[in-house]
Amino acid sequence: MEKPLIFITNDDGIHAKGLRYLIELMREFGRVVVVAPDKAQSGMGHAVTTASPLRVKKILIEPDYEEYSSNGTPADTVKLGLKVVLKQKPDLIVSGINHGSNAGINILYSGTMGATLEGAMSGIPSIGFSLLDHSHNADFSHSIPYIRKITEHVLKQGLAPHTCLNVNIPSINSGEIRGIMVCRMGKGYWEEVLEERRDPHNRPYYWLAGSFQSLDHGTDTDEWALDNHYISVVPIQLDLTAHNLIPTLKDLENHI
Amino acid sequence: MEKPLIFITNDDGIHAKGLRYLIELMREFGRVVVVAPDKAQSGMGHAVTTASPLRVKKILIEPDYEEYSSNGTPADTVKLGLKVVLKQKPDLIVSGINHGSNAGINILYSGTMGATLEGAMSGIPSIGFSLLDHSHNADFSHSIPYIRKITEHVLKQGLAPHTCLNVNIPSINSGEIRGIMVCRMGKGYWEEVLEERRDPHNRPYYWLAGSFQSLDHGTDTDEWALDNHYISVVPIQLDLTAHNLIPTLKDLENHI
Repeated sequence: MEKPLIFITNDDGIHAKGLRYLIELMREFGRVVVVAPDKAQSGMGHAVTTASPLRVKKILIEPDYEEYSSNGTPADTVKLGLKVVLKQKPDLIVSGINHGSNAGINILYSGTMGATLEGAMSGIPSIGFSLLDHSHNADFSHSIPYIRKITEHVLKQGLAPHTCLNVNIPSINSGEIRGIMVCRMGKGYWEEVLEERRDPHNRPYYWLAGSFQSLDHGTDTDEWALDNHYISVVPIQLDLTAHNLIPTLKDLENHI
Repeated sequence: MEKPLIFITNDDGIHAKGLRYLIELMREFGRVVVVAPDKAQSGMGHAVTTASPLRVKKILIEPDYEEYSSNGTPADTVKLGLKVVLKQKPDLIVSGINHGSNAGINILYSGTMGATLEGAMSGIPSIGFSLLDHSHNADFSHSIPYIRKITEHVLKQGLAPHTCLNVNIPSINSGEIRGIMVCRMGKGYWEEVLEERRDPHNRPYYWLAGSFQSLDHGTDTDEWALDNHYISVVPIQLDLTAHNLIPTLKDLENHI
């Protein structure tokens, strides 16, 4: 049997420790091709680049391993990976390991998950992995057996068409991992703080910061799982329609 | 009764014709505050800016009207609008009118809809308007009575918490509008073409282009509505969970 072809990207950029962990682990499973952003692209969501040209830079070619960087967003790197570098569909797309949570509504802001959703759109089984530790030198070691297990599952059983997985992993400092929990996306929002500073000309500028606020008391959410030392696995689909609201809006269809 | 407070943004930037149409129309309904990107931000999705400082520039202050530009993404402008400029919740957030379609899965790439989803997250009734015409000088005139009707509906009846509307309008060149259709998001994907060019040093670069491919034969989708000369209104919610897949993944929870 031919080795699986695995495409890897991330949003923290080509030099991120989380990416290096994911590359080492995926090389156990098959032939690996990496196209990762040449700089950090956190918070890029599903952004794509149409107004400026994209570049792909070859970094390393070895047997069963290729590595490239790109000036594009995470979603761009998937498009470039499929159409310019691989020119074929890989068996799996993995994105991460992100330095920081992408649980709950963070999926919508996340470059890591933007790339993963892009993979799902392209009809390729895709997984985004994130660790709840923003630090540059985060310890990913405890996550390895779980990432291995989830990857084995998806390589063997596939995923439903146009779906992907959002996997979040508690920080090593939060205590021993209790296992994996398959759950739904928790509801919440960011309570923004826009911190004002003054430049040398006394003109104001703002730093976007804030704290995540849960709006969900369920014990079946990713936020609950992570708070309780589980690795959260949320199956994700691409339909944002509020189907239950369609009938309530039908009077909009009356003639003007 | 106090006039409604309406917040406006877009992704084509402060100078876009579609934004100017939307501003004029919204001023019929109440007090209007605009914070729009200072340059085009198409394809920015739900991207946010945390690695560089945000600026807000005052452009115009009149009775019942204020206009600002910002260096941020569309989603940033909503955060800045709520926390820095308004310092209160508006009654309505409207984004657009976008020059180009945001129907179907384009919602995930769209800065217009990124801002609209941000409004929904913040618990404010939010509507994104898009016209299926990319041109700088697109004709928006036929859309006005429909935008008025949808806006009146939302100002009067509100929207379910943490939902918003994705409204797409056929181009004036596509024939007479048949009315409004409330529908679901169509399934599809972009068949990418990454066009290769060479720079003067013979190094390759790529332009991201492509064509939208529908994967949906339903007659209840936004894509169908637009193809059949209807204005599509899709109610949108923020939960991407593939709820039906949760039971199928439960064996991931077995101990390693």
